[in-house]
Amino acid sequence: MSKLIIFLLATLILSSNAAVQDFCVADLKAPESPCGYSCKSVTNVTVDDFVFSGLSAAGNTASIIKAAVTPAFAAQFPGLNGLGLSAARLDLAPGGVIPFHTHPGASEVLLVTQGSITAGFVSSANSVLKKTLKKGDIMIFPQGLLHFQMSHAGYTSVGFVFFSSSNPGLQITDFALFANDLPTKLVGATTFLDEATIKKLKG
Amino acid sequence: MSKLIIFLLATLILSSNAAVQDFCVADLKAPESPCGYSCKSVTNVTVDDFVFSGLSAAGNTASIIKAAVTPAFAAQFPGLNGLGLSAARLDLAPGGVIPFHTHPGASEVLLVTQGSITAGFVSSANSVLKKTLKKGDIMIFPQGLLHFQMSHAGYTSVGFVFFSSSNPGLQITDFALFANDLPTKLVGATTFLDEATIKKLKG
Amino acid sequence: MSKLIIFLLATLILSSNAAVQDFCVADLKAPESPCGYSCKSVTNVTVDDFVFSGLSAAGNTASIIKAAVTPAFAAQFPGLNGLGLSAARLDLAPGGVIPFHTHPGASEVLLVTQGSITAGFVSSANSVLKKTLKKGDIMIFPQGLLHFQMSHAGYTSVGFVFFSSSNPGLQITDFALFANDLPTKLVGATTFLDEATIKKLKG
Amino acid sequence: MSKLIIFLLATLILSSNAAVQDFCVADLKAPESPCGYSCKSVTNVTVDDFVFSGLSAAGNTASIIKAAVTPAFAAQFPGLNGLGLSAARLDLAPGGVIPFHTHPGASEVLLVTQGSITAGFVSSANSVLKKTLKKGDIMIFPQGLLHFQMSHAGYTSVGFVFFSSSNPGLQITDFALFANDLPTKLVGATTFLDEATIKKLKG
Amino acid sequence: MSKLIIFLLATLILSSNAAVQDFCVADLKAPESPCGYSCKSVTNVTVDDFVFSGLSAAGNTASIIKAAVTPAFAAQFPGLNGLGLSAARLDLAPGGVIPFHTHPGASEVLLVTQGSITAGFVSSANSVLKKTLKKGDIMIFPQGLLHFQMSHAGYTSVGFVFFSSSNPGLQITDFALFANDLPTKLVGATTFLDEATIKKLKG
Amino acid sequence: MSKLIIFLLATLILSSNAAVQDFCVADLKAPESPCGYSCKSVTNVTVDDFVFSGLSAAGNTASIIKAAVTPAFAAQFPGLNGLGLSAARLDLAPGGVIPFHTHPGASEVLLVTQGSITAGFVSSANSVLKKTLKKGDIMIFPQGLLHFQMSHAGYTSVGFVFFSSSNPGLQITDFALFANDLPTKLVGATTFLDEATIKKLKG
Repeated sequence: MSKLIIFLLATLILSSNAAVQDFCVADLKAPESPCGYSCKSVTNVTVDDFVFSGLSAAGNTASIIKAAVTPAFAAQFPGLNGLGLSAARLDLAPGGVIPFHTHPGASEVLLVTQGSITAGFVSSANSVLKKTLKKGDIMIFPQGLLHFQMSHAGYTSVGFVFFSSSNPGLQITDFALFANDLPTKLVGATTFLDEATIKKLKG
Repeated sequence: MSKLIIFLLATLILSSNAAVQDFCVADLKAPESPCGYSCKSVTNVTVDDFVFSGLSAAGNTASIIKAAVTPAFAAQFPGLNGLGLSAARLDLAPGGVIPFHTHPGASEVLLVTQGSITAGFVSSANSVLKKTLKKGDIMIFPQGLLHFQMSHAGYTSVGFVFFSSSNPGLQITDFALFANDLPTKLVGATTFLDEATIKKLKG
Repeated sequence: MSKLIIFLLATLILSSNAAVQDFCVADLKAPESPCGYSCKSVTNVTVDDFVFSGLSAAGNTASIIKAAVTPAFAAQFPGLNGLGLSAARLDLAPGGVIPFHTHPGASEVLLVTQGSITAGFVSSANSVLKKTLKKGDIMIFPQGLLHFQMSHAGYTSVGFVFFSSSNPGLQITDFALFANDLPTKLVGATTFLDEATIKKLKG
Repeated sequence: MSKLIIFLLATLILSSNAAVQDFCVADLKAPESPCGYSCKSVTNVTVDDFVFSGLSAAGNTASIIKAAVTPAFAAQFPGLNGLGLSAARLDLAPGGVIPFHTHPGASEVLLVTQGSITAGFVSSANSVLKKTLKKGDIMIFPQGLLHFQMSHAGYTSVGFVFFSSSNPGLQITDFALFANDLPTKLVGATTFLDEATIKKLKG
Repeated sequence: MSKLIIFLLATLILSSNAAVQDFCVADLKAPESPCGYSCKSVTNVTVDDFVFSGLSAAGNTASIIKAAVTPAFAAQFPGLNGLGLSAARLDLAPGGVIPFHTHPGASEVLLVTQGSITAGFVSSANSVLKKTLKKGDIMIFPQGLLHFQMSHAGYTSVGFVFFSSSNPGLQITDFALFANDLPTKLVGATTFLDEATIKKLKG
Repeated sequence: MSKLIIFLLATLILSSNAAVQDFCVADLKAPESPCGYSCKSVTNVTVDDFVFSGLSAAGNTASIIKAAVTPAFAAQFPGLNGLGLSAARLDLAPGGVIPFHTHPGASEVLLVTQGSITAGFVSSANSVLKKTLKKGDIMIFPQGLLHFQMSHAGYTSVGFVFFSSSNPGLQITDFALFANDLPTKLVGATTFLDEATIKKLKG
């Protein structure tokens, strides 16, 4: 392509893109709107805004749940702001578990990259749909439904999950019910657990 | 749940939610975008942002239309910004009427809580779909179509309407045509009313 | 407007609306798509498709939860298919409770029409936002988050809820965890409840 | 590119596109859903599905409104089904007018290709925004708001309008109020016109 | 309509529209979000924000491609921000061509207003759908697919294109591959062109 | 939870879910709509609809591009229909390359699970954003933009990509321009390649 053509096409392109918005890298310090963070100035955007290395290392599973979740949502990975995607890494020691939880704003797909993970969700019709997945399998969890992932006794497992939103949210049921200042009596009334059990769980 | 688990889950939650956005309470003084108001800082959000008591009292129907509309849109009730819902209260004295109007950006559902309301809409195919509703009935009005609500002669009626947007808009036909600076001649040309009638309506 | 104009405008309208779609009343027997039910033929649509009286009577609260939910989703009220709205009626005897639950596909607004209801939700950041509402108050619950509603000891309460989707879904946490064929051991692993408690809850 | 590469890339493409859906030409005889018509089989699609010549001829303006609208919505031009766009041609004899109307489901942009058109819309805040446009000017009308177009006395004008939906709908205010079976009394109550005027308009 | 009614309706309207948002004229200097530019204050909005005259003059086709594109995207025409529409003018001298390109974020409809334009697109299944259009014809190009427009040898042609987004983007294939700092070797590896050809195109 | 409560909650759930739609497993033989395939009957849905094992085996890279793409779009993996997500596996022998291509309907995120992949995209402003990724890195490609992936000389690389739509589409530039029945002259006019080069590429 001759330099002249390049110049002419460049003129065409640039004139039509005084303000391009085929992406919107999050400016985490500017105002948010219901559709995501404000955009960082295009002139400050580099390829590093679109690459995230924070999922390459295993999370620390030396805890009582023997599991770790490392998120790559818009807050950690600003390049995916507004693009309808986000990610997280799941590390599961043998017997490790990601307890029942929901993502209020996104569907999720899980890819198993190591070990063996039993995963499942509960549908609105209250059916349980669960299966044991091996390396290379993918499983889809529809938006907002309760689901869990757990590793088999003998396996150290790793999975990567991807969401249909750059801000999927996360609500772990146990934590939402027992790890805050909800009064024991109210938890009892709204979950049908007896007070002794709730106190133990809160304790 | 032991304190250790709570601590660990809390770590998991908080790390993944440095910037949570499962709601976006409107900051009415910050910039707006096409998808709604900017979000108030999460640290300043309280339950009062999600509760609105302004619909509990009757509006003043001592007017010539014998009716009042009290809105709870994002501008009045910031908690619903970006959540795809808003509300309003309709008070209708006997014979009161909410004249033909549209909501450019939302469908509407009406719940009658007192009295009896005759409501209707006109479809794109110009069919009239109207019915007299009693307490407890609900009726749906598809997005953007002309509709009205009126109380029966003998009834003081109350209704609550809910919209599929936090900013549904409101355009009352009479008001749009006659209560602004549109020239009489132009109104005549675009409505087929004669000038005398228009002047009377404007007058 | 003269008959001639009417004829001419009618021609204009009808020619542009050989197939109108400002609404899509659900044909519950035809195929569904990800965006809702197929549309009933416009020629069979009447005003009764847009009105629903099934919420005018109280639900039966003579149960152990002392509460009843009567839905008006697209499956019950076909006229709201695809219009981004649905509804339900809550009846709560004194002490009645709608246990913790989520709607995977919609935000919800509650209107209290009788008695007094304490309602709340848990945010992604695990804050509890709850308040006691009186008649005429409205409260908004953001999409997908755990929430509950309960009546005060001395009150028979009634509320109407409206959703930002014609198919919001409903997942009651207790029911999803304990009222299906999830193995006790798996529930234990994913909720941190001990087996004795789970067996009691399942029992 | 060698035939081998072509074969390999073709394999790649075809395997990933057993069912392609980058367009969805309307099958006007199959069920509709809230998001549009069902798709015609890809094997029957030709370029003619994506081209429409029905706007190349002037509409008949020999009527009392001295104007004609020729639509190219999904029902006339199946290729734009689901693609978020549609079109129409406006022909205006000298003094011709497209009376006040709304499109419940779309914003509109007008391009003047001949003559001179005065166009305007009324905002939710009841401001009138109108201007006289000349050939080559474009004007945008936000979704759902009342608007009109009229030709100047001395001009035969032509415009093309484009909508942000393949099914924008059309509701002409006069026609919706006076050209159907709405009872005169009800029209009076909901428009504040007197009965004599309404009877004349209906007549 | 009496002044009293006008006053009362005005009160009704204004109370419900403390912050109207049936449009969002772009404030090009304020932060952008994934759904568009921030809105200019309603009090500063005039009809001129909704009218654009920049497409009324022909672009300069005295270049090697014998063609010019004049855009009316949100950056040039702030009134269409967030309204799901934008436009551009195509000027094609005899033999002029708009080379293969895509719009990553929008479908496009072309209206030929002068001359004769051959246009086409390539589907995901790799079919070529092309046709020669004459004055008054419209053609639709589905979102994101490669397409081109060219004038016949004997014709000076003009077209207007409209997009289903206020920020459709534009990516001219040749320009994207050869008119930037992509290394020759990498272009060769990803396009199967030989290095001599690439160097010539870049040169 | 006592059996009575279970029974009562079950009644509540089932009554509200005569037709549940928190997912819509594709019925590949029923009509498609612009928003996806029709839904398979819920009664025939099993967990296997939500799990896909077709990405667990390497694709065949013994070709001239030394690469293979194995898709998991709605057509291959019906469970993700309508859920806003899909996936594919990339296998790259040493020096293998996925040539420049676009996905017209989705953004993409790449996870490298083996080897080392150099990937990049070209923005609307014609900037090249490319980087060499190692195992565990993720990179985001905004919707519709030209991008490529290639393995390093010494590495056999594997990546998994995830899309923000269940039907992202795929358009490989070379293939779209040279591997169909586009006339050589037209390709020349729209790409600025000389005829000899095009014939070689087509050959």
